[in-house]
Amino acid sequence: MNGDLRKIALESSMNGLTGRSLAKIVSGDAGFVLEDVPHLTDYIPDLPTYPNPLQDNPAWSAVKQYFVNVDDTVAQKIVVQKGSARGTHFRRAGPRQKVYFEPDEVHACIVTCGGLCPGLNTVIREIVCGLSDMYGVERILGIEGGYRGFYARNTRQLTRKYVNDVHKRGGTILGTSRGGHDTSKIVDSIQDRGINQVYIIGGDGTQKGASVIFEEVRRRGLKVSVVGIPKTIDNDIAVIDKSFGFDSAVEEAQRAINAAHVESESGENGIGVVKLMGRYSGFIAMHATLASRDVDCCLIPESPFYLEGKGGLYEYIEKRIKENGHMVIVLAEGAGQELMAESMRSTEMQDPSGNKLLLDVGMWLSQKIKDHFTKVRKMVITLKYIDPTYMIRAIPSNASDNVYCTLLAHSAIHGGMAGYTGFTVGPVNGRHAYIPFYAVTETQNQVVITDRMWARLLSSTNQPSFQTHQEVTKSMECLNCSTDGSPSKKN
Amino acid sequence: MNGDLRKIALESSMNGLTGRSLAKIVSGDAGFVLEDVPHLTDYIPDLPTYPNPLQDNPAWSAVKQYFVNVDDTVAQKIVVQKGSARGTHFRRAGPRQKVYFEPDEVHACIVTCGGLCPGLNTVIREIVCGLSDMYGVERILGIEGGYRGFYARNTRQLTRKYVNDVHKRGGTILGTSRGGHDTSKIVDSIQDRGINQVYIIGGDGTQKGASVIFEEVRRRGLKVSVVGIPKTIDNDIAVIDKSFGFDSAVEEAQRAINAAHVESESGENGIGVVKLMGRYSGFIAMHATLASRDVDCCLIPESPFYLEGKGGLYEYIEKRIKENGHMVIVLAEGAGQELMAESMRSTEMQDPSGNKLLLDVGMWLSQKIKDHFTKVRKMVITLKYIDPTYMIRAIPSNASDNVYCTLLAHSAIHGGMAGYTGFTVGPVNGRHAYIPFYAVTETQNQVVITDRMWARLLSSTNQPSFQTHQEVTKSMECLNCSTDGSPSKKN
Amino acid sequence: MNGDLRKIALESSMNGLTGRSLAKIVSGDAGFVLEDVPHLTDYIPDLPTYPNPLQDNPAWSAVKQYFVNVDDTVAQKIVVQKGSARGTHFRRAGPRQKVYFEPDEVHACIVTCGGLCPGLNTVIREIVCGLSDMYGVERILGIEGGYRGFYARNTRQLTRKYVNDVHKRGGTILGTSRGGHDTSKIVDSIQDRGINQVYIIGGDGTQKGASVIFEEVRRRGLKVSVVGIPKTIDNDIAVIDKSFGFDSAVEEAQRAINAAHVESESGENGIGVVKLMGRYSGFIAMHATLASRDVDCCLIPESPFYLEGKGGLYEYIEKRIKENGHMVIVLAEGAGQELMAESMRSTEMQDPSGNKLLLDVGMWLSQKIKDHFTKVRKMVITLKYIDPTYMIRAIPSNASDNVYCTLLAHSAIHGGMAGYTGFTVGPVNGRHAYIPFYAVTETQNQVVITDRMWARLLSSTNQPSFQTHQEVTKSMECLNCSTDGSPSKKN
Amino acid sequence: MNGDLRKIALESSMNGLTGRSLAKIVSGDAGFVLEDVPHLTDYIPDLPTYPNPLQDNPAWSAVKQYFVNVDDTVAQKIVVQKGSARGTHFRRAGPRQKVYFEPDEVHACIVTCGGLCPGLNTVIREIVCGLSDMYGVERILGIEGGYRGFYARNTRQLTRKYVNDVHKRGGTILGTSRGGHDTSKIVDSIQDRGINQVYIIGGDGTQKGASVIFEEVRRRGLKVSVVGIPKTIDNDIAVIDKSFGFDSAVEEAQRAINAAHVESESGENGIGVVKLMGRYSGFIAMHATLASRDVDCCLIPESPFYLEGKGGLYEYIEKRIKENGHMVIVLAEGAGQELMAESMRSTEMQDPSGNKLLLDVGMWLSQKIKDHFTKVRKMVITLKYIDPTYMIRAIPSNASDNVYCTLLAHSAIHGGMAGYTGFTVGPVNGRHAYIPFYAVTETQNQVVITDRMWARLLSSTNQPSFQTHQEVTKSMECLNCSTDGSPSKKN
Repeated sequence: MNGDLRKIALESSMNGLTGRSLAKIVSGDAGFVLEDVPHLTDYIPDLPTYPNPLQDNPAWSAVKQYFVNVDDTVAQKIVVQKGSARGTHFRRAGPRQKVYFEPDEVHACIVTCGGLCPGLNTVIREIVCGLSDMYGVERILGIEGGYRGFYARNTRQLTRKYVNDVHKRGGTILGTSRGGHDTSKIVDSIQDRGINQVYIIGGDGTQKGASVIFEEVRRRGLKVSVVGIPKTIDNDIAVIDKSFGFDSAVEEAQRAINAAHVESESGENGIGVVKLMGRYSGFIAMHATLASRDVDCCLIPESPFYLEGKGGLYEYIEKRIKENGHMVIVLAEGAGQELMAESMRSTEMQDPSGNKLLLDVGMWLSQKIKDHFTKVRKMVITLKYIDPTYMIRAIPSNASDNVYCTLLAHSAIHGGMAGYTGFTVGPVNGRHAYIPFYAVTETQNQVVITDRMWARLLSSTNQPSFQTHQEVTKSMECLNCSTDGSPSKKN
Repeated sequence: MNGDLRKIALESSMNGLTGRSLAKIVSGDAGFVLEDVPHLTDYIPDLPTYPNPLQDNPAWSAVKQYFVNVDDTVAQKIVVQKGSARGTHFRRAGPRQKVYFEPDEVHACIVTCGGLCPGLNTVIREIVCGLSDMYGVERILGIEGGYRGFYARNTRQLTRKYVNDVHKRGGTILGTSRGGHDTSKIVDSIQDRGINQVYIIGGDGTQKGASVIFEEVRRRGLKVSVVGIPKTIDNDIAVIDKSFGFDSAVEEAQRAINAAHVESESGENGIGVVKLMGRYSGFIAMHATLASRDVDCCLIPESPFYLEGKGGLYEYIEKRIKENGHMVIVLAEGAGQELMAESMRSTEMQDPSGNKLLLDVGMWLSQKIKDHFTKVRKMVITLKYIDPTYMIRAIPSNASDNVYCTLLAHSAIHGGMAGYTGFTVGPVNGRHAYIPFYAVTETQNQVVITDRMWARLLSSTNQPSFQTHQEVTKSMECLNCSTDGSPSKKN
Repeated sequence: MNGDLRKIALESSMNGLTGRSLAKIVSGDAGFVLEDVPHLTDYIPDLPTYPNPLQDNPAWSAVKQYFVNVDDTVAQKIVVQKGSARGTHFRRAGPRQKVYFEPDEVHACIVTCGGLCPGLNTVIREIVCGLSDMYGVERILGIEGGYRGFYARNTRQLTRKYVNDVHKRGGTILGTSRGGHDTSKIVDSIQDRGINQVYIIGGDGTQKGASVIFEEVRRRGLKVSVVGIPKTIDNDIAVIDKSFGFDSAVEEAQRAINAAHVESESGENGIGVVKLMGRYSGFIAMHATLASRDVDCCLIPESPFYLEGKGGLYEYIEKRIKENGHMVIVLAEGAGQELMAESMRSTEMQDPSGNKLLLDVGMWLSQKIKDHFTKVRKMVITLKYIDPTYMIRAIPSNASDNVYCTLLAHSAIHGGMAGYTGFTVGPVNGRHAYIPFYAVTETQNQVVITDRMWARLLSSTNQPSFQTHQEVTKSMECLNCSTDGSPSKKN
Repeated sequence: MNGDLRKIALESSMNGLTGRSLAKIVSGDAGFVLEDVPHLTDYIPDLPTYPNPLQDNPAWSAVKQYFVNVDDTVAQKIVVQKGSARGTHFRRAGPRQKVYFEPDEVHACIVTCGGLCPGLNTVIREIVCGLSDMYGVERILGIEGGYRGFYARNTRQLTRKYVNDVHKRGGTILGTSRGGHDTSKIVDSIQDRGINQVYIIGGDGTQKGASVIFEEVRRRGLKVSVVGIPKTIDNDIAVIDKSFGFDSAVEEAQRAINAAHVESESGENGIGVVKLMGRYSGFIAMHATLASRDVDCCLIPESPFYLEGKGGLYEYIEKRIKENGHMVIVLAEGAGQELMAESMRSTEMQDPSGNKLLLDVGMWLSQKIKDHFTKVRKMVITLKYIDPTYMIRAIPSNASDNVYCTLLAHSAIHGGMAGYTGFTVGPVNGRHAYIPFYAVTETQNQVVITDRMWARLLSSTNQPSFQTHQEVTKSMECLNCSTDGSPSKKN
């Protein structure tokens, strides 16, 4: 298969962890580059193919040109000039004329890992229904409690009927967990149970794990498709347009911001502080701020800030309070981590058992602001701190995310049935594509603070940029390579 | 300006109504085509330019590469093969280094036309705030009650303060109206009031009107930017990815579908019928159906259906009722119009005043189904008909639409300030672009029933396709050209 | 039992339908009257009693004075003067020290009849869980599809697990139906299946049916408790404070009123018309109007109105439109029926099959208003009509109704276990009581238009009273007896 | 006035703070007692009266028997036996035939104190609209920022137009504050500004403050009505049925409980902990638990609990986790305070500035549970803690609370106009009444844990009672006097 491709089988790196070792890069005219994904035939020659059963499905039979052209690719670069190079492309997702599994042969499994995110159940439902409705697959296992469930827990048979209403519930019906797992035991379990399609829903770390599982599967020469479905409520997965659940989360965050706004308006010199998700990226905080318009200051990990002195946060708060009598601050959980670390160093607190007391940044900042205004500025302020994290994570996905989850699940299924493996799925400029694991795990998306979206936010809140000109120039140099792949590419 | 472009100034057509008469087409290598938009300098030579005031705006000053490169274009074709032609492109939206208006000189106005749509107030708010915050423009008029308001009503001064909370309310604070207007009087009013930027928010018909206003403005040689912001809750505007308010509408439609589902489950042989928006296109019905999963049949204008006989709707209803005991039908308001017209011909009803009684398709179909099962099949059925149209239209926009409306408004403003005119704005494959009026008014987007999205829906509902093979082949021939530009391009 | 009561066994009425034939009236000092409910021992002497199993239940064992004193009654009259008569009382609901059924002996069934109402599933759930948790009863049947289900359908076993989440769903898991049923067949079915506790959830007509079932059960001398739980979304059941689902319905109605308000504000001379539930009483319309404050006119069955002339609706609409530019009308489905009947008489319309075309009052009124202003007054108006009925009925009950439904279910269970029969349950001045069927079926609650609640509404909307002084005086005479028992007794 | 009443002017207590010093107790036959409220004529003889302007109001003119009979009272005791004493009554609220203020003479003011509660803005709105619509009063001042606003801040003129939409917003448009104030300065301000009706919305402490203000006003002999409107989201105000905002709060709490439920189901041995409002009473926690049914344990201040050993919380958690794999705990903020105090004593933590670090009980308990299971039991658990307090407090009131707030406001106005003073308003058994300040401030409502409502909760959650038999008996003795006045009097 793909005999015309120039495969670049790079040497495995020392630790064998980087998926790029198996990168398949194809070049074309005018700077065209295809970052292709692995295929079962890369290491199992002479696999038989079968006609896609969708050809006989009444719903699809009408759609003559239904199958994706084997040469279709999706362009990553969408803003171009007349003479510019065509740049990176990914293999287009969708059903293929030929599949590498017979329906009766397929034994699929689904696992969810990491934190909750609206839409997990919809993705599960749609993999089950899609495999069943489109490909006639009936043997689908649910792995419970994340990766460890492969070897430490019983599995659950997933049927159309069982999953029928699960998209209306938050969370994941399979349960989830974080942290360590034993790749070898997982692949043993896959082999022992006769599983040949593995659908793995999870974030950055989970996709890295999937990459390692894929490499082990490949090493053992198993006919097993390993398919990742990227999940991150923070929307910080590289390459793809947007992660599922993000819209739902931003929507739900409005409630917390509204509450903070009401509290701040009703108290004397009221300050409402809302902490939102975002360990390394401030997308939820930024979008929630832009959607709400009631926020006076948005703090994110990508944009370091400082408290004291000219251009600092305290100065800005005091100015706003004096102008308006109240203000709302939204901060991502990863914002100001260095500042907090620095501040806590000298006064490290311990809990009764002698453990370091980890305060979250929202609490820490709230306390700092209270202390500053009460003790230093001798001003009465009324500060209310709201942490809606779990209330946001646990909602069911909204309609828009539901449709999106369906497309993700279907893209994953079509890829798995067509023998692709070691890939993740997602929309690139609005078109679903198959993306090699390394492309989504090597970097993370972040808010580009020299980009217009952040400028737009600064303009709407009027908050200080907390930056000198040098810093900006410097940060631009670091980041300008990734500007084009920004998840918030709307402009 | 744009001296290197090969302008194609086509002869005006007879009636002067088609905007294509002023089309500016630029060709490049490898099949690159740019469908450019008009500019004030096309007909007013030697206009002075000014540095963009954003350069001194604290929020933007940090963003060195903030301004859009004058040559940036956005590709309409995103799924490509290695050697394929590059195809149509549009001018990228965004702020330009040079603007053609001084802040003090600008006198903008905003008008909203046509039916309600979630997000209208957000667009209004963001044009006002954007002009004020980014460009220092303070003179902004609200035209009340649609196009006719230019000459038949008083105007309202729009300030930052006045619009501050309007995005939390549904409807349009400017009021709206449908139907006829006098272009000449409108341009008189623009000229008399000294307006030089006109922001027109409205659907297909409104954009056509904007095109004619632009042509009259151009004919009179006025320095007036005419900018359209496309509005259609039905999501049937060509070229752009998605229209604002669509997501909010699909979300709100879930309530009606849920209610229909509950009613159908509780009654004996319960049938719930929900009519959704969509005169000529079934996007809302299709997406609401895919998001909900509780729908057994979705009827849209693009897919004609029939009631009687094999493969007809009655047969399918009876089958579902016998299998499940209940079912839900979602139909777009434009579905089955010919069928209804045909059915009503012989039994035209009149109201007390002798007027033809227009029944809507939802009521008509509900009555037909009741009659068929009660009288012909002698079955007891319990049918409940729900028309949530006005309850959906009137909601405020959700968070996702709010952010989108901001981007639309900013794109419009940047274009207007930069001297572009006679264009509409919107995202093309995720990137905002300036699009000539004719490109969005000459065709309408429709659900492509030979596309995978519709096949996906058929598969999820299990409804009949109501089609013979010939019909499908035929419809594919008509439509295959537009498959690529489909609004639901996700796959 | 109740040996000290003076039983008044009135002669059965001719048709045997009026439950009052079995009325048990007890008199006391100072005008004290108890309208008692029947008991199994009324017609089955020497029934054995058992200690209430709640005595050994860990949750209840702590509550020493848990059991209701056998003499406790609840006063219907709550506003009193120093020397006034004590008036009517009802038997207090709650657990009794002695019960007339052993847990193993109980075979209960539940049936739901009539239209949907938020809370039906909660009542079902709580009867099942209550019988199981409190009394150890495990045999509980669900009768499907209303009364007819007793003999025409299969039954369903209801378990704690089966009903666990049903309170989060609208509708009724048992299904429902309206209309005729065969009492004899129902009691045959009760007898044949060995059912000895019958819980009947339904409105006015259903409670009448329950009364007849009780009389037949009594006639046959069966040891079967027949217990009614009153259900009416319209809140028009006499004696009790409020019916379940009413709060949820009023809450949901706000959405429709908001939409009508938004639509009316955005259109030229906009009029929003919302039809709400209320065949014979306007409680939902009145409360929804008072809660919203965006309503300019509220029309209910209790307050006849007229269209033309001085003090008529047209005059008021024109006045409001001229003052404000827009208005919202809320009307109960039963309002203006005579007016419509009169108006339609001469121009009766028929559907294609020759059937009389029943237009609803909302549509009719909307058309009349349109005709009047368009043809007679030559005014442009924009009227939008919203009928949210099914969207309101189908919601799950809110938290307040959920708690209320629990109390209703528990009151019913305690009564049934204690051997009371032929009664309905509900709060009287905030305390749950057992009420003889006839007391809730002989009259219906209505909005008393000479009461302060309606005056409050008139004051808040500023609408005309549509009444001459004579009419009011007359209506007061008819209604003043029931003023005290009004469901909206808050003042 | 009230010449026939036997006034009991008790000696002022030492500190002069207890309102009971001015108690007016009236006795009647059969144990009838009226706890009357003060009246301006108690200390200002010969005040002139005026006919109530409502007599000429078109909305009210139709209602002949509109005015409340001067002798009407509302019974506090509603469950009675045939021969029992009639017990305590309160003066019925409502409009009087004669008023003691002319419309032009009235200069009213409104102040809100204490924490936020849904409905504050509705009460403000309805006092303003009610005074204006019903009594033609136009001079109404808003006191900003709580009691201190009387002397430390400017006032705001409140008009019908200004308050028109405020009921749709959470919080209080007047702002609020807690804590100390200077009665003398307040009454000075009242006197200096010529205010003669003071409407005070606030909780327990605020009503005590109002009582002292009233006494000072009385001492100075001012013709000023001092009217309290009781506000407590916790629902712990004595005598009245329910406080406004309580229903809305319980409804909103469902979101947090749902989220905790989803989180607990998705994690390994998941435990969701939700802290709800309730410093001294657990009504919100209890009702939210009963409404939700997803809660496994509800902890309230009235029911002390312990962690270790048999019958303790740890044991119960372990049992539930082993049975179900997950559980949800709801606790009121005042629950377990002694336990926490005891636990913290030896390991008091300080913040960087040396202040005592106050942990809330939810955090404390969460940490204790984590420590116990991780360190002692060596079990993996996943605990998520949710504190939705500010998100609940800040919502707008729901429809039911909106109607209730209207009635409260009207009752207050009618009382003030009729010359009553030194009283608070609220429903007693469903009928609004005027209640002397001392009756609502001397005791607080609490959940009676020997009452059936709590037993019902224990039964639905299956949680341990944490009580030995002696304790229960003892607590019953303390509390049985207040059983009848319980706010959750439904049974």
